Amino acid sequence: MKRLGIIDIGSNSVRLVLVDINAQGHFKIFNEFKETVRLGETDSKGMLTAEKMQTALETLGMFKTICEAVRADEIVTAATAAVRRAPNKNEFLTLVYERLGLRIRVLSGEEEAYYAYCGVINSIDEKSGLIMDLGGGSTELVHFEDGVVKNSISLPFGAIDVTRMFDTSNSVSAATAQALRRFLFDELGKVNWLKDLKKNIPLIGVGGTIRNIGKIDKKSKDYPLDMAHYYIMDPSSVCSVYEQTKDRTLEQRIKIKGLSKDRADIFFGACAVVWHILEYCRIDRLVVSGSGLREGLVYDYIGSSYSPVGNMLDFSLNNIISQFNINRVHAYQVYKLASSMYVQLEELFGSSRECEKILKTAALLHDSGISINFYSHDSHAFYMILNSGINGLTHREILMSAYAASLHRNTKLKLKWKQYSQILSEDDIRTIMKISILLRLSESLDTCMDNFVEDIKCRVDGESVEMNPIAKKKPNVEISRAINTRHDFEQVFGKKLLIQ
Amino acid sequence: MKRLGIIDIGSNSVRLVLVDINAQGHFKIFNEFKETVRLGETDSKGMLTAEKMQTALETLGMFKTICEAVRADEIVTAATAAVRRAPNKNEFLTLVYERLGLRIRVLSGEEEAYYAYCGVINSIDEKSGLIMDLGGGSTELVHFEDGVVKNSISLPFGAIDVTRMFDTSNSVSAATAQALRRFLFDELGKVNWLKDLKKNIPLIGVGGTIRNIGKIDKKSKDYPLDMAHYYIMDPSSVCSVYEQTKDRTLEQRIKIKGLSKDRADIFFGACAVVWHILEYCRIDRLVVSGSGLREGLVYDYIGSSYSPVGNMLDFSLNNIISQFNINRVHAYQVYKLASSMYVQLEELFGSSRECEKILKTAALLHDSGISINFYSHDSHAFYMILNSGINGLTHREILMSAYAASLHRNTKLKLKWKQYSQILSEDDIRTIMKISILLRLSESLDTCMDNFVEDIKCRVDGESVEMNPIAKKKPNVEISRAINTRHDFEQVFGKKLLIQ
Repeated sequence: MKRLGIIDIGSNSVRLVLVDINAQGHFKIFNEFKETVRLGETDSKGMLTAEKMQTALETLGMFKTICEAVRADEIVTAATAAVRRAPNKNEFLTLVYERLGLRIRVLSGEEEAYYAYCGVINSIDEKSGLIMDLGGGSTELVHFEDGVVKNSISLPFGAIDVTRMFDTSNSVSAATAQALRRFLFDELGKVNWLKDLKKNIPLIGVGGTIRNIGKIDKKSKDYPLDMAHYYIMDPSSVCSVYEQTKDRTLEQRIKIKGLSKDRADIFFGACAVVWHILEYCRIDRLVVSGSGLREGLVYDYIGSSYSPVGNMLDFSLNNIISQFNINRVHAYQVYKLASSMYVQLEELFGSSRECEKILKTAALLHDSGISINFYSHDSHAFYMILNSGINGLTHREILMSAYAASLHRNTKLKLKWKQYSQILSEDDIRTIMKISILLRLSESLDTCMDNFVEDIKCRVDGESVEMNPIAKKKPNVEISRAINTRHDFEQVFGKKLLIQ
Repeated sequence: MKRLGIIDIGSNSVRLVLVDINAQGHFKIFNEFKETVRLGETDSKGMLTAEKMQTALETLGMFKTICEAVRADEIVTAATAAVRRAPNKNEFLTLVYERLGLRIRVLSGEEEAYYAYCGVINSIDEKSGLIMDLGGGSTELVHFEDGVVKNSISLPFGAIDVTRMFDTSNSVSAATAQALRRFLFDELGKVNWLKDLKKNIPLIGVGGTIRNIGKIDKKSKDYPLDMAHYYIMDPSSVCSVYEQTKDRTLEQRIKIKGLSKDRADIFFGACAVVWHILEYCRIDRLVVSGSGLREGLVYDYIGSSYSPVGNMLDFSLNNIISQFNINRVHAYQVYKLASSMYVQLEELFGSSRECEKILKTAALLHDSGISINFYSHDSHAFYMILNSGINGLTHREILMSAYAASLHRNTKLKLKWKQYSQILSEDDIRTIMKISILLRLSESLDTCMDNFVEDIKCRVDGESVEMNPIAKKKPNVEISRAINTRHDFEQVFGKKLLIQ
């Protein structure tokens, strides 16, 4: 195992993320610290001020102590725009090196964009998109198509700059808002490739402000999940957050539910950037990414030292399987059998095809709850799947996987789904039920957890479904347990189940 | 690590529990199987029937296959009353040994009582009590005082016998109920030591029926926790379950919420035994134990091969700490500091003293949620503590520990407590808040997770509380973080906080 400290010196905050990486290259964040240093609040010449440098030094000293205390094997320290742009950056770098022995890597705008891309592409399942990393002192834009970077740019202004230029930390007049919009449209106008973006790609937002926009929107909608990552908003919702902050004073802004105090002064400026980019590029959805620069640094580190991440969902699932000592052989056997049934019973899933990812997640993690407690482990699987930060699934897919897994022993919906009706439709519930029946059958067919059943042949025959488990010897025990599912099978699929 | 299969051949069901025991003697149940074989339904001469023996043999064969498939290092097979009493038990034992190579250990009534006692005494924090293990074919009673067994007896009838003798599987007339009551009072009257039981000791019930009584009661009261173990009922609630099953037919009984179908026929007879023992001994509460014979066999195995369990709460907490790779040094440091503050600030806790166990649990497990996800790990700690099956705490104590831990970073009650108002009072909530403040302070004082602060001196001085951390060097970082808690401290304790 390798223990890594990642320090990210931004224009707004300085952060430390502590990460354990295991032999397979799976990683786990186990602590995080943030100090709002505001290094980006430079003097009129753009110089880092002595005061801010001192605060940053103290924070870095504390972070170094923490890294040493937890016995980190390596500390990766990266600085972005605030340091990059400062004419006196060398003074700061020397100070930090001499006092603390920390070598700060100053990222170029291109590198900053690249790491944000790494953070996103390994955690959000979108083939194409425009990534925006909105920092305090710069804004990175990366356009990728079919997983390949097409263009990227680092715009030399961020939330702090915009706030200062247009004095937006307090209530903003219509004229100022208009001027800010014009400025942004002008700046975006200089980026030629932005004009040729295809429609229907999402804006994938990285950074504290964007998570904050998501949070405000979720609060206002009583969104039932406490997940920042992969939250999706339509432009009008972003506009509404923009509008409701515009007229308010700083004091009033602080009271907005979900808006973090540390950020209240620069929030409107940042929000304006997000909203106007959506407008300018005529993009139809904002995807909030909880994973960005810091995670990108981790993925890059893993990729260079271990085998690359590959499929992000598989990576996440295997990460969880190894972390919680889930019986991998049994998990994959249940997945294999359920998947085989799913393919053969295609017609019974009707319009609810495209559930491969849900089936895989639910099957591989159906026993994940055992790590909390064997008793009620089906309910615990629900909690685990919902909360363990699986990458590559939308909130709806996570929720469906969690429900399906929670029903792998009993087809009674103990967990009331109405509270999730913003996310799940009645159709989704029917699909969940169907998947869960396949899990129960597969679980029964691996009662002895010994891969005894090699495959299963399924055939829809009028009003019934015939299943024939294939094994070296007739799997009597397994069949007798599987057959207990027949009543629920009939209820869910509307067909009789025959197992021979 | 040792992997153990425990097979329990009861009169009603045959069960397999799979357990992993680590080097420290901590164990975890990772799978369980149950088949309702009803070996106790013997013929008129009390002989095990050929049919039941055959079913038992098949079940045992399946269990053995499962044990082999999961590579159990050892299989412990124990049989209770049904086999013990049967004149033809040797036929059965020989059959099983010849066919499967399994040697069944037939427990005497005393041994059966002893193992139930082991299961209870290691998981329920009661100094004295009357344990009742109500099986299909016998009923064990164990009286212990200050942790020492005073008397025990194995009564030669269980749920199946009573059901047969009085034909109670369907609705029961008043006369039959009266006859059953008279029979039980007569039998209990023969046990001399039962007459001398002190008042105020609980009846601690072990076995499926008793868990079932608890479940029915919880359903009827909309009890907010899904925990069988350590659920406490007053006699009138047991009586009410008894009364509501008495008149009903088998069909109607099956529909009672919480009553398991497998047990519906013998449930009334069993329930009558529980109720009449409560009546006869004039006991004022029934404590449901989820831990009994099988767990007792595990504890006994551990005790003979590893160091003994000792304090059950410590054992549970250390079990969880090692299972989830919680930073043990940091956890114990937070506990040490919080505990020191708690002792010194006694007067501020007023009537809510006696929270040592809650403080310990919350402090040691405050970071347990990180194993699920670092983000929102305070909320995950709530779930973990509530669900990981900690022994030695009542439901109220578990809930209070969970809440206190969930507030270790922020004193805002995100998790609504009104749903738990059956269990928690407003006073309890105030205590939770106070404990959580101590946790936050201790967490801050161990920011670098390096045990830098050795102790803390606290003094209540009129309207303020002074705290002085003791360390080799002045802990500036730690103090500056701890001081952030002052507003919440003042709100919760009604005193100003000064840290120097």
